[in-house]
Amino acid sequence: MKHFFLVISLLIAVSSCTTTNSQKQLQQTVNKTDSIAIKQLFNSALTNGQCYEMLDVLSNDIGGRLSGSPEAQQAVEWGEKLMTELKFDKVWLQPVMVPHWVRGAKEEAYFTVNNTKFNVPICALGSSVATSENGVIGEVIEVQSLEEAKELGEKLRGKIVFFNRPFDDTFIRTFHSYGGCVDQRYAGAMVTGEFGALGAIVRSMTHSIDDYPHTGTMSYGDLPDEQKVPTAAISTKAANLLSEQLKENPTLKFYFKQNCKTLPDAPSFNVIGEITGSEYPEKYITVGGHLDSWDLGDGAHDDGAGIVQSIEVLRLFQLNNIQPKHTIRAVLFMNEENGLRGGKKYAEEAKLKNEIHIAALESDAGGFTPRGFSFDENGKNYDLFMSWKPLLAPYGLHELEKGGSGADIGPLKSETISLFGYRPDSQRYFDYHHASTDTFDKVNKRELELGAASMASLIYLLDTYLE
Amino acid sequence: MKHFFLVISLLIAVSSCTTTNSQKQLQQTVNKTDSIAIKQLFNSALTNGQCYEMLDVLSNDIGGRLSGSPEAQQAVEWGEKLMTELKFDKVWLQPVMVPHWVRGAKEEAYFTVNNTKFNVPICALGSSVATSENGVIGEVIEVQSLEEAKELGEKLRGKIVFFNRPFDDTFIRTFHSYGGCVDQRYAGAMVTGEFGALGAIVRSMTHSIDDYPHTGTMSYGDLPDEQKVPTAAISTKAANLLSEQLKENPTLKFYFKQNCKTLPDAPSFNVIGEITGSEYPEKYITVGGHLDSWDLGDGAHDDGAGIVQSIEVLRLFQLNNIQPKHTIRAVLFMNEENGLRGGKKYAEEAKLKNEIHIAALESDAGGFTPRGFSFDENGKNYDLFMSWKPLLAPYGLHELEKGGSGADIGPLKSETISLFGYRPDSQRYFDYHHASTDTFDKVNKRELELGAASMASLIYLLDTYLE
Repeated sequence: MKHFFLVISLLIAVSSCTTTNSQKQLQQTVNKTDSIAIKQLFNSALTNGQCYEMLDVLSNDIGGRLSGSPEAQQAVEWGEKLMTELKFDKVWLQPVMVPHWVRGAKEEAYFTVNNTKFNVPICALGSSVATSENGVIGEVIEVQSLEEAKELGEKLRGKIVFFNRPFDDTFIRTFHSYGGCVDQRYAGAMVTGEFGALGAIVRSMTHSIDDYPHTGTMSYGDLPDEQKVPTAAISTKAANLLSEQLKENPTLKFYFKQNCKTLPDAPSFNVIGEITGSEYPEKYITVGGHLDSWDLGDGAHDDGAGIVQSIEVLRLFQLNNIQPKHTIRAVLFMNEENGLRGGKKYAEEAKLKNEIHIAALESDAGGFTPRGFSFDENGKNYDLFMSWKPLLAPYGLHELEKGGSGADIGPLKSETISLFGYRPDSQRYFDYHHASTDTFDKVNKRELELGAASMASLIYLLDTYLE
Repeated sequence: MKHFFLVISLLIAVSSCTTTNSQKQLQQTVNKTDSIAIKQLFNSALTNGQCYEMLDVLSNDIGGRLSGSPEAQQAVEWGEKLMTELKFDKVWLQPVMVPHWVRGAKEEAYFTVNNTKFNVPICALGSSVATSENGVIGEVIEVQSLEEAKELGEKLRGKIVFFNRPFDDTFIRTFHSYGGCVDQRYAGAMVTGEFGALGAIVRSMTHSIDDYPHTGTMSYGDLPDEQKVPTAAISTKAANLLSEQLKENPTLKFYFKQNCKTLPDAPSFNVIGEITGSEYPEKYITVGGHLDSWDLGDGAHDDGAGIVQSIEVLRLFQLNNIQPKHTIRAVLFMNEENGLRGGKKYAEEAKLKNEIHIAALESDAGGFTPRGFSFDENGKNYDLFMSWKPLLAPYGLHELEKGGSGADIGPLKSETISLFGYRPDSQRYFDYHHASTDTFDKVNKRELELGAASMASLIYLLDTYLE
């Protein structure tokens, strides 16, 4: 019996080795068809791509397109016209009401030390209130965190609070650095207005030490109107200068003036184009980005790139005569930046219509060289997705892992959907993010095209292997 | 006996599985120390890095530094002074004679069609002869390859030969596209001068369709002086225009004038700094790039990046108190671009002095975001190198594979040395390579620093695991 057990347990051990080998063979058979399809998608994106030219129009002819602006409306019309001309099976507008905040005349800011005036670049944060017509002037309290500000409490009264915690440069992925700082921008005014501060100035969300302030959304939470104080981002160079000067001159006076306001909600649209599925027309795979952008630059990386890449995915399917089994939709979401109304509306309508959404992919991390995808799903498809690694690695897509997906597709989350985020290289993203430097000339044609091809390849695999 | 054999063969099968597991455990134990060291190298490069500031000086204060130029001499002095100030254990200059080609006054080129004059951007190729003072004018024959030119033979007489084979955009790694085209630049004049052509115009070596001509080295091979014809690169936009116009007007006349010349060889230097090894001071690991650059831009990516990263590797060792077992040398090679005299001299001197070189790493592919390393070795260390993959992957270094290393360390090749090339992302490299656009503003600080940390990590592993 001893021998019998030995043989049996050895057999089990060997069989686990053998299974691995035959699985590998199976996988390699499957891979061949897929790898040819993926190679074709990349070839056509790199030699017959149109996404770079699309982005040129969206960035240079239309430009920055904040929700509710005339440019946002132009972008809606551009997207609808473009997808109609590309002869997608269906193209339509999905109405959605969006916040309508306007910056008004350019901001001004300076501080004075011993009669020397230092002008500093600032920009109002999205949703902020304006200063009075005469601006705001006051002494500055520098803090490193929301917690530090809260502890100061009543000491903030009559002061301008300066949130100056910088990016942690040791993260390899810059989104982690952003995630570690952005609470200051989002809630700086919320936690200080309550204690009678005059305003909140926030260090720009970037690794780069330069003269460009980076805007972005903020919130007053539940504060009553009288506690809503104006808040702005200051460039990193000016933040360093201010911090230095404060050490020597803690009572220096800081002045800023901004002219923004929130108008009533405005009508706008998500723009949707689809190729109808041949086998499962009632099952949807969505690929999208956001059509709105901040107003300072032309929104080329954030998120013009994701928009044109999403349209290009469907175009690459057409170009390569790939008839998807499921219905593939390119969705140009409106209002990611300051409301997420488009993303919420899309999910709401999907629910109302009992649409079955099996997967979604969002590109909202810039048009940079491919690194991979992160995904969020219930565990059922984990092994399937990981088995695609060898298919994707030749294209620089080495990072395939569980993680977040994207803000606009987030509201689609359910027990059955798989949500993906396209993850390009992140090193340069925060040089441009929400700043006047986010312009078309910062986008490299091949990097953008490789991104579109990467996304098309993932959508191809999802369409092929999911039911 | 049947059972006995079964048990034995099963045991062998199992033991091969088991060995793999215990190897993994061993590897994971080893990895922990290494992964901490590598994390420290990255942290210090990203928070206390100096390579970006070094590159600012080399690019902006010194600028383009072609072999034999005053700027190349300034770069030598800069490198020696910098490494001396950094207190490396030894810093010295290794004399080497280098070719001395000068561009002279800016080139001119145009072609005329029906009395319309099209000015086109060109630049002389390195080592080319000048045109006569009046320039060269003639009809154009467009070809796609050296072979096509050779077949035309005597038909080239009195003509300007236009080599216009574009980059193949379907390669994912742009160096493959370059490799598939650069024979036109290197040998275009060589194969056409023989047949009495007036000159050779070569499409610039880039994916980008723009107005910038890209220079680079060329050779006349063994041609006698009277068959050496002037040769220049033309921008890709102008190449496309010329090609289009030639279809309609095959007898159009092309004019160009260039003023370059080759002076006698000039004295110059490799600049070498080292940290002496604690256990094997007589065994060397070299890390280097090339100090010379083309003259059109300021050589920030090619190869200012490799220079400052190599110096930074040694500085990061100092900063983290890593005492290497072997002697680590930063070598700033002179004359990679048009002669490789520095690389050859370094290997020659190493041989003369019976130095034992166990490994070398070159960075000459730009200061872009890390992708990995390729290596060239005799097979003995293959498994060791591949076992480092999990240590490097968290830093975006996914590509570790056999392949080329670098031009300057190539002459060190032997049965026992392992040669490595640093492989950053290649998508943007040929936008700038050898053109006036290769300037400091095209370098992202974090990408450059991540490259330096990647190289330091590899040198750390080589020093730790090789004998």
